[in-house]
Amino acid sequence: AEGLQKVVKRYKVLVKEKTGGEFPDDPRDQLRRSIMAVLSSWNNDRAIKYRRINRIEGLRGTAVNVQAMVFGNSGSNSSTGVCFTRNCENGVKEIYGDYLINAQGEDVVAGIRTPKHIGELEAEMPKNYKEIAKFLADLEKHYRDMQDIEFTVEDGKTFILQTRTGKRTPRAAVVIAVEMVEEGLITKEEAIKRVSPAQIDILLHPTFDPKAPRKPIAKGIPASPGAVVGEVVFSAEDAEKRVQEDAKVILVRKETSPEDIGGMNVAEGILTAVGGKASHAALVARGMGKCCVVGCGEIAIDYAAAQFTANGTVVKAGDVISVDGTSGEVMVGALPTIEEQNIAQYDILMGWVDELRTMKVRTNADTPEDAEIARKKFGAEGIGLCRTEHMFFGEEKIAPMREMILADDTAAREVALAKLLPIQRKDFEGIFTAMNGYPVTVRLLDPPLHEFLPHDEKSQRELAAEIGMDAKAIADKVASLHEMNPMLGHRGCRLGITYPEIIRMQARAIMEAACNVKAKGVDVLPEIMVPLIGTLAEFSITRAIIVDVCTKVIEEKKQPLDYLVGTMIEIPRAALIADQIAKEAQFFSFGTNDMTQMTFGYSRDDIGSFLPHYVAEGILKVDPFQTLDVDGVGQLVRMGTERGRGVRSDLKIGICGEHGGDPDSVKFCYSIGMDYVSCSPYRVPVAKLAVTQAALESPRG
Amino acid sequence: AEGLQKVVKRYKVLVKEKTGGEFPDDPRDQLRRSIMAVLSSWNNDRAIKYRRINRIEGLRGTAVNVQAMVFGNSGSNSSTGVCFTRNCENGVKEIYGDYLINAQGEDVVAGIRTPKHIGELEAEMPKNYKEIAKFLADLEKHYRDMQDIEFTVEDGKTFILQTRTGKRTPRAAVVIAVEMVEEGLITKEEAIKRVSPAQIDILLHPTFDPKAPRKPIAKGIPASPGAVVGEVVFSAEDAEKRVQEDAKVILVRKETSPEDIGGMNVAEGILTAVGGKASHAALVARGMGKCCVVGCGEIAIDYAAAQFTANGTVVKAGDVISVDGTSGEVMVGALPTIEEQNIAQYDILMGWVDELRTMKVRTNADTPEDAEIARKKFGAEGIGLCRTEHMFFGEEKIAPMREMILADDTAAREVALAKLLPIQRKDFEGIFTAMNGYPVTVRLLDPPLHEFLPHDEKSQRELAAEIGMDAKAIADKVASLHEMNPMLGHRGCRLGITYPEIIRMQARAIMEAACNVKAKGVDVLPEIMVPLIGTLAEFSITRAIIVDVCTKVIEEKKQPLDYLVGTMIEIPRAALIADQIAKEAQFFSFGTNDMTQMTFGYSRDDIGSFLPHYVAEGILKVDPFQTLDVDGVGQLVRMGTERGRGVRSDLKIGICGEHGGDPDSVKFCYSIGMDYVSCSPYRVPVAKLAVTQAALESPRG
Repeated sequence: AEGLQKVVKRYKVLVKEKTGGEFPDDPRDQLRRSIMAVLSSWNNDRAIKYRRINRIEGLRGTAVNVQAMVFGNSGSNSSTGVCFTRNCENGVKEIYGDYLINAQGEDVVAGIRTPKHIGELEAEMPKNYKEIAKFLADLEKHYRDMQDIEFTVEDGKTFILQTRTGKRTPRAAVVIAVEMVEEGLITKEEAIKRVSPAQIDILLHPTFDPKAPRKPIAKGIPASPGAVVGEVVFSAEDAEKRVQEDAKVILVRKETSPEDIGGMNVAEGILTAVGGKASHAALVARGMGKCCVVGCGEIAIDYAAAQFTANGTVVKAGDVISVDGTSGEVMVGALPTIEEQNIAQYDILMGWVDELRTMKVRTNADTPEDAEIARKKFGAEGIGLCRTEHMFFGEEKIAPMREMILADDTAAREVALAKLLPIQRKDFEGIFTAMNGYPVTVRLLDPPLHEFLPHDEKSQRELAAEIGMDAKAIADKVASLHEMNPMLGHRGCRLGITYPEIIRMQARAIMEAACNVKAKGVDVLPEIMVPLIGTLAEFSITRAIIVDVCTKVIEEKKQPLDYLVGTMIEIPRAALIADQIAKEAQFFSFGTNDMTQMTFGYSRDDIGSFLPHYVAEGILKVDPFQTLDVDGVGQLVRMGTERGRGVRSDLKIGICGEHGGDPDSVKFCYSIGMDYVSCSPYRVPVAKLAVTQAALESPRG
Repeated sequence: AEGLQKVVKRYKVLVKEKTGGEFPDDPRDQLRRSIMAVLSSWNNDRAIKYRRINRIEGLRGTAVNVQAMVFGNSGSNSSTGVCFTRNCENGVKEIYGDYLINAQGEDVVAGIRTPKHIGELEAEMPKNYKEIAKFLADLEKHYRDMQDIEFTVEDGKTFILQTRTGKRTPRAAVVIAVEMVEEGLITKEEAIKRVSPAQIDILLHPTFDPKAPRKPIAKGIPASPGAVVGEVVFSAEDAEKRVQEDAKVILVRKETSPEDIGGMNVAEGILTAVGGKASHAALVARGMGKCCVVGCGEIAIDYAAAQFTANGTVVKAGDVISVDGTSGEVMVGALPTIEEQNIAQYDILMGWVDELRTMKVRTNADTPEDAEIARKKFGAEGIGLCRTEHMFFGEEKIAPMREMILADDTAAREVALAKLLPIQRKDFEGIFTAMNGYPVTVRLLDPPLHEFLPHDEKSQRELAAEIGMDAKAIADKVASLHEMNPMLGHRGCRLGITYPEIIRMQARAIMEAACNVKAKGVDVLPEIMVPLIGTLAEFSITRAIIVDVCTKVIEEKKQPLDYLVGTMIEIPRAALIADQIAKEAQFFSFGTNDMTQMTFGYSRDDIGSFLPHYVAEGILKVDPFQTLDVDGVGQLVRMGTERGRGVRSDLKIGICGEHGGDPDSVKFCYSIGMDYVSCSPYRVPVAKLAVTQAALESPRG
């Protein structure tokens, strides 16, 4: 009591200093003032700003609960604790938690005294333990979910202070949801709603042991989940070299470009200093299911010195680091990892998802291997985006591609294209076979041609020597193809209109492959997709060339075959004139990455300088490259869908941007009536869960 | 007759060779086949393609007129000629044309015999001349426009073969239109409709003497009209140096950048190898009213050798060339020019235009001088776009700007900004004074910061020495500001949100200038415009800073003053959420250059590789950077206007892109209810005529 007096005295001085007023002695006054303090917190600057940014309107204020206190620290016959109705780490059905004898709730969490496991309470306070166990069982049954409960025993009497739905690990979420269905406590539909797509995503990737201490030296944007350890390399070349020497590497770059694909492919993970969730590094890494952190502005790379500095820590090439693709953190040294978990309940849950799902989920895959994984491991229902340009990277394939680009005239280009034809055909055969019975959407060549040429003098000299061409001529070609804003340049269908021989080669490769595998009994459903359409004329011209080639191949091969010709809707103008385009296009696939870039005027490669600030300040609620901007870009997607279906009611519509794997975006796609979403292989289960949840929340039509 | 037989025989052989068939002897058969040939021309490839591209539908075919022939070559009592009811070159009311005795129409135009001036016919065939003169007068009176007539006299009898409205020079168009009003033949409204905006544009610029022979060595995209002669220079630096030595120069560049402004300003004209009508060179040149040809892909510039090659002709630095900004042609040597013409009738016509006009026309001007010219010479009714960044180029102004960009923290930036404040204020004072009584829209800083820094090593070293900074630090800063797609990067309001001190300085400079000139009795109407808005939050934040500064300045100066704060609508998303933005913005100004770039996904700097092909092939009917794309971009402009006015009915709306000076675009702006258009000074009369014609064609409201 004397101690308490002392505390009260000190507190009164503090109050005097801070507010200039006296601390009231009257308990009623104390209570009144406390209530007023809570009520008026509604109008402090932070709260007002929060409501403005989040557009929370029409509320009249906050509320205050006033409650009598109980004391767990009133002697050895008292205790206090926190516990869960099931194990929140692994989902096992058991009481799980901590308690302390003669203590208040604060003491349990503050870490001054080490709390005991709840199981020991059974021996120490058997009557209370029994009461608590009963309360727990009743509360879980009542709320039909795992509960997180605070209790206090005051002089032998049990009080439940609070109950709420308990937080749990992804693993526990899946186990609990499935077991509760088996116990008859909830329905399958409820179980599906209880697991978040983000939890599924984490389950599919390795994580660092949460118990291992971690001291991040920098934090970037988590672009592709996972937990990886490896030695630092600063170039794709070094990555490939070190991996051949059996090292595990993490590729650290300012930014990546298509030239780095080889190195990215062999690296454990990728870390970049600039770029956002839709940067080249992020896109490619997600496609590969590879851990990736981008836009890590806290690291300053010095390529010349082969080192980077992060908040004072210098990391040299060869040093080992750990990268967390879920949190975006970078640590020095090797953290212990927990590998991907095999949980029986996961398979059961995903079975229910497939059972109740009404919207298709396809995958983005560019190789037979990826197609195989997506189909076999994740149950993708076709390919929504097969990017043909990725087929041209890699040792043997890039040479004829470069020859084609460096060619001076159509004849020389056709010679080089003839070499590319069998390479593409072979890849398509593999992909079609892997997707037996499911549609495959192949996109024609999209990136600007300069992406395939080396940009530094040394590589240009090497290439010149290799193909027996003048280095100056290569440098001149690179210079002539240089663009101020390549994102808005000579690419997509614009390439095919300038060089129709490229379209002819690609259409032939697709159709020959389709005929070949069909002859072997594969059920092949090719969909040929034209990128970057902005006018109907572009589509008409390209489509005419494709149909002409396909008709010829089908005749040559004597193999009747149905195929579709459609287009990406990624340029804002394409959405605006979707009614015109749908007259000729048999399907639409929304390319919401590029559409987001153009609708916002954001370059995905350059947003590092302002987007993190925008998101932090609430100017943007979310990164629009991660979650589709329903307010703006969404208007165009909806418009494109409605106008397209307005003239062609059976128009097949999907989405193939990165948003196809984002739960919120996928729900929007479902709500406007798309036929399918397409995402990288490792996100297929995530998307499946999200579209099923969307359907459960508001079944359409 | 023997000669005729010979011709017929040769013709029959020719027909046999070409068609494999016999030429028919039966005149009925000849006639029938001729008719069929014309009718079936409706379905030849060229005609079908033409109709497809131009979307001409629903027609059933073409028609054929069959007429008896008369022979002007049946002896010396016969003649044939072509004449106009007024002089088609200068508009004087006189019969104007040529004829030949004993000849057919073909002989007059073929140039084998030199035709005589029509006046001489009065002496040679007085009766026929009198008849022809009577026909001419009657036909002009009937059709109420100048006629272009073909006549033939056969054996003394006069026949009029054809009459049609006569083509005329811009000068003649103005003179004839005004004189016909004075003669009571047509109304003022009709006179206004008779002169095309393009003709007014040509009248306002010097032209090459059409009689001088010209041998173009290359042809580019005509970006800014005029006709200039000067010696070739390949850098802005050389331009300034040679002009100081009293030379007249033409700046030839692959492309221009803001660093070239000084050189562009002193050059007679500008010629670039790449870029379109909305490229930097084109925009700046039009703003300066300076002749400019862009995207001239036929010239290959070798900076190192200080020469360019055009279709085999080598032109070295110092060689004199002539550049035609109206046709896009480039000639070697000095062609004779005809200076801008002063025509009394032009002033009368523009007086009528102002009298009947219902939509305002403002100008884009960045300096007091331009503002003065636009107001005094062309009668601009305010400034629709004052780009503040142009104020930072030029000897003394760029130094503190660079200091600001290179500053490491806010404090250092503010020191540099304090130096920029008086510079901006002085410019604004000049502009406000020139626009006494008319609104001035000032746009806050728009381009990415790297545009203000030197990019080559040499200039960086010079700058380092000048400001006493490490050259490496400057190079690092330039590298850190580098963007993959600067068009979609850290610019516009995004800069102001990251560096609010820039907005504060600019708002202060604007408001101090406004208060200062108001104190001197100037009627000042400032409109502060935020560029590149894509979200409401961006506008709210920027507006709050502006209003805060302006309120303070008004208090400090004790000078009450009304001003508006509004925004550019140039990002597609801004048009889509215009209803949100209009809640806080007091005016919209459509920046249709950038909106065209983003809606089409075209970089104005890179379209040279495909846009000319697109226009030539009819994939695009017009260059969308020249004439607003009503089908696509126009939807966003209309949407932005309707949604904006939906929440703020008195929202002031204008357009300040280059389209503001394009007649067809201006008509669209009128039709959707904009308050004004804004264009470069030299296009103000063109825009005035166009909006008046639009109002006459379909009065609104």
